[in-house]
Amino acid sequence: MGPGSPDYLTVQAIETLKRVDVFFMLEKDGRGKHELLQMRHAILKHYLGDSGYRVVTATSPERRTLPDGYQETVRAWHNTKRELFAHLLAEELADGQTGGLLLWGDPALYDQTVTMIAELAEAAAGALEFEIIPGITSVQVLTAKHKIPLNRVGESITITTGRHVEHCDPSEIDNAVVMLDYNASFQRFTDQNMDVYWGGYLGCADEVLISGPVDSVCDELLQTKARVREAKGWLLDIYLLRRRRDDEAS
Amino acid sequence: MGPGSPDYLTVQAIETLKRVDVFFMLEKDGRGKHELLQMRHAILKHYLGDSGYRVVTATSPERRTLPDGYQETVRAWHNTKRELFAHLLAEELADGQTGGLLLWGDPALYDQTVTMIAELAEAAAGALEFEIIPGITSVQVLTAKHKIPLNRVGESITITTGRHVEHCDPSEIDNAVVMLDYNASFQRFTDQNMDVYWGGYLGCADEVLISGPVDSVCDELLQTKARVREAKGWLLDIYLLRRRRDDEAS
Ligand SMILES: C[S@@+](CC[C@H](N)C(=O)[O-])C[C@H]1O[C@@H](n2cnc3c(N)ncnc32)[C@H](O)[C@@H]1O
Ligand SMILES: C[S@@+](CC[C@H](N)C(=O)[O-])C[C@H]1O[C@@H](n2cnc3c(N)ncnc32)[C@H](O)[C@@H]1O
Repeated sequence: MGPGSPDYLTVQAIETLKRVDVFFMLEKDGRGKHELLQMRHAILKHYLGDSGYRVVTATSPERRTLPDGYQETVRAWHNTKRELFAHLLAEELADGQTGGLLLWGDPALYDQTVTMIAELAEAAAGALEFEIIPGITSVQVLTAKHKIPLNRVGESITITTGRHVEHCDPSEIDNAVVMLDYNASFQRFTDQNMDVYWGGYLGCADEVLISGPVDSVCDELLQTKARVREAKGWLLDIYLLRRRRDDEAS
Repeated sequence: MGPGSPDYLTVQAIETLKRVDVFFMLEKDGRGKHELLQMRHAILKHYLGDSGYRVVTATSPERRTLPDGYQETVRAWHNTKRELFAHLLAEELADGQTGGLLLWGDPALYDQTVTMIAELAEAAAGALEFEIIPGITSVQVLTAKHKIPLNRVGESITITTGRHVEHCDPSEIDNAVVMLDYNASFQRFTDQNMDVYWGGYLGCADEVLISGPVDSVCDELLQTKARVREAKGWLLDIYLLRRRRDDEAS
């Protein structure tokens, strides 16, 4: 579905929407979650109007932290979520009908839904088929809005998590997009000749952009993040950390 | 423009096409280059018909290998290309008019056009404005067609070049998308518990997909690449290399 606005849908995605009988939406707790659900409804209304399809909303299972550690916690949570999908498909889809899931951005980027559906399809041995429609990611909106390339000439790029950046050796990061960062880990990159390109609520009505040397904008970033999160009750943000090259002015 | 087919354009991209007075197309030598140009014409025809815009085609400067090395070669080539853009904008756009460039996939991914236009805009000090419209990349089509996520739980992903993978220590690659590979560098990853997900001409009429353990599919990949490149005279391909985890069957 791309990162929010109906304008980010591709023609392929719109044509696919029209083939769907039932859309499944998972509702999670928290203020932002409601708004994120509303954006999905807005997309359906925009392209399909009010009729010709059904929307089934279910409550997404909560992630319970298990004593066995992170991997086990995630595994148990995914099992519960996959069972929920299995249940929904069995209960809500008649034979020959098509279900749809509006996944944020592109389904391949930090979203395990594809894996769960693939497992269900495998278990169903032919009785369930699925396909994936690519979507614009928050990474692409980040670079487009900052008007920067993802890779400078010949360079690699890493897409990683706040969880990783929070603990890794900062010198191993040269050009990295950081997602799912709940602890403002860019703070670890001061005094290292690094630039940051940050975006909050990209592609949404409240979009905010900040960029510059980490040393200069770190405080502004922390303040802005606190302010917008306070105002809206939630925040989706992403940033690119890039080591300045010798031939680049700061 | 996404990776070829008109269906990959977003609504935002289509709306933007309608605002363009002159489309600039760069023609490069070689058989495939002609087909790639044709796909751009097909997109314009599909969404705009035959009138209401102009297409200006120029010959893209060739990259001349300089004795000073790779970085210098690329720098000189980019300077020539930027001058060409400057010339085209000055000659072909009247005051207040809008030019458009249909960049393959997403403009941020291994494409330096954005940097060149940004430099021209900076030099023009207000007389030239530009914006970037995100597009679906070949990476997203690769994962969608193979029905895989880009990141397994908590994992990072690197997007890199054949040039890098050809020379790096293979053990440093755990989960990487390889682009611009002219030497089938996946051959370096046999006997290392690696899977490969490969795609040629993704999203185009001649799309080919191959996946499996590198050890099992390496020969098939080499043969297929040789065969399709021979048949069409050119090949655009990309692949993901992924180290199998202990908990995954081979
Ligand atoms: C679970 S991941 C899913 C990413 C999604 N599949 C995509 O393609 O963008 C959620 C993370 O994506 C990033 N993100 C998603 N949408 C965003 C937006 N509109 N603005 C800024 N960051 C966003 C944030 O880093 C967030 O923590
Ligand atoms: C100069 S880069 C440009 C990438 C482009 N900006 C994108 O977003 O996909 C060209 C490389 O992209 C990959 N590529 C682009 N289009 C492709 C396609 N349709 N099928 C397979 N690989 C493709 C290949 O690895 C090729 O060497």
